Amino acid sequence: MYWGFAFDDARCDSGPLSGRPAQFNAPGGQVQRACETDSAIFHDRFAGALQDIMRRFRASAPPTQVSRFAHAHRAWLSGVAWQIGNQAAGRMPGLDDFLVMRLLSSGGEPTFALLELATGARVPDRDLHRPAVRALTEMAILVAALDNDAHSLHKELTGGQADQNVYTVLMQELECPLQDAVRAATGLRDRVLLRFIELHDRVRPTAGQDLATYLQGLRYGIRGNNEWGLRVPRCLSCGQWPDEMDDTLLTWADEPSDTRPGPVEGAPAIAWWWDADLG
Amino acid sequence: MYWGFAFDDARCDSGPLSGRPAQFNAPGGQVQRACETDSAIFHDRFAGALQDIMRRFRASAPPTQVSRFAHAHRAWLSGVAWQIGNQAAGRMPGLDDFLVMRLLSSGGEPTFALLELATGARVPDRDLHRPAVRALTEMAILVAALDNDAHSLHKELTGGQADQNVYTVLMQELECPLQDAVRAATGLRDRVLLRFIELHDRVRPTAGQDLATYLQGLRYGIRGNNEWGLRVPRCLSCGQWPDEMDDTLLTWADEPSDTRPGPVEGAPAIAWWWDADLG
Repeated sequence: MYWGFAFDDARCDSGPLSGRPAQFNAPGGQVQRACETDSAIFHDRFAGALQDIMRRFRASAPPTQVSRFAHAHRAWLSGVAWQIGNQAAGRMPGLDDFLVMRLLSSGGEPTFALLELATGARVPDRDLHRPAVRALTEMAILVAALDNDAHSLHKELTGGQADQNVYTVLMQELECPLQDAVRAATGLRDRVLLRFIELHDRVRPTAGQDLATYLQGLRYGIRGNNEWGLRVPRCLSCGQWPDEMDDTLLTWADEPSDTRPGPVEGAPAIAWWWDADLG
Repeated sequence: MYWGFAFDDARCDSGPLSGRPAQFNAPGGQVQRACETDSAIFHDRFAGALQDIMRRFRASAPPTQVSRFAHAHRAWLSGVAWQIGNQAAGRMPGLDDFLVMRLLSSGGEPTFALLELATGARVPDRDLHRPAVRALTEMAILVAALDNDAHSLHKELTGGQADQNVYTVLMQELECPLQDAVRAATGLRDRVLLRFIELHDRVRPTAGQDLATYLQGLRYGIRGNNEWGLRVPRCLSCGQWPDEMDDTLLTWADEPSDTRPGPVEGAPAIAWWWDADLG
């Protein structure tokens, strides 16, 4: 996780390559190869550190789990490249495009691919690739990604840059001020989380032990990401380090802000999460 | 396959996006989502056609095989983005980088991911992700990709552009004229094929039925790609359509041009294919 954050800060979100896709695609490809291949030699401090991490994965998990992580890693980098491309072209994506991009660029894929490596669960192929399980994974990633956008909102606003996040996207999409975009984003996030809970509760009872561990990991991921994001200086960047034991920062709504069922409007690329025959 | 070639010609290799990574990364991401999601709506003729193909895959194969294809598809597009980034930056890659990029941009990953969909073989995870099987897949892809570079050489030379292929890369890497680069490229390709054969013959005897079908598919792929590439106007582009029954075009060497064992010099990113403990 820390490797990912460091790489993200130095090479993706900010740093000299953040608006230069022609420059990012090549080192992005090299780092991905470093993730796959121990014999590769790249003159990049991040590549070497990633190879060290991957060696540990290979020493402790079967090739299937390591391959899944590598695929997830590529998915992440492809989203980063997409984001950098938008930035370079000065293009603010529409909502649907943004959600697909954010699913990837948020780094949720490799984060959740760590679940098997961390817990020792070995989810069978036929379980992991089930559309319902895939939908649950994507929904958990999106909820966490939108929560991250919330955590970073203050920092991004004070930074003065109109970066691509769910708020700037919705302000453009709905032609509305920030306050309305915040409400719309929270509603969207809540609807996805509600669908996650609904589908989870349908899938979990018949899940085998390994799949159950994985699904529980997705749930912990959503919650843990919030607890972490509300404290971490990386997102806050307001010069003040919250007390680790200070719980007052964590405020939870009593109920979802939007309980409308069915697919979110204007987001066909994720509409299948609400398919009736999932699960 | 034909969808891939059409997309490649219109959006990747040539076409308006071929040197503009900021413009390619976004539609690349959209097309990938179309590959994963039927509900996605993109205003791109290629996305809709790909969704139609994917629907057929989903109707005829388990989610695991369809997911493998989707992952392979992303790998391909990431290689294309890399290539376009190099083009935009006017950067001719070194040999090692080029080989990693070419493994992806050649489209060999999705091509061979079709093997399971076409044959009905269902290779177990623990087989497909074995390092030896992964090495065999990558070697088959590289041999076919280098053969494609050979097929296109005449066209590329007459086109007058110094595109990224194994010859232009080797001319820069070895500071040599084309003739020497051709010799070096053929030697490299032959060494990889020799290693493929050696490793294949070690893995095949203990392979289960599905893995054996897959491995045989890799072999057919190398041979078939050559038979196809020597005839197809797409590569030849010399205004003359070879007679389908004309076998005289197919000239095979009696023996490999280079039989040196062990990893190819200057290519650490693929050196692990020669690891003694594979297989």
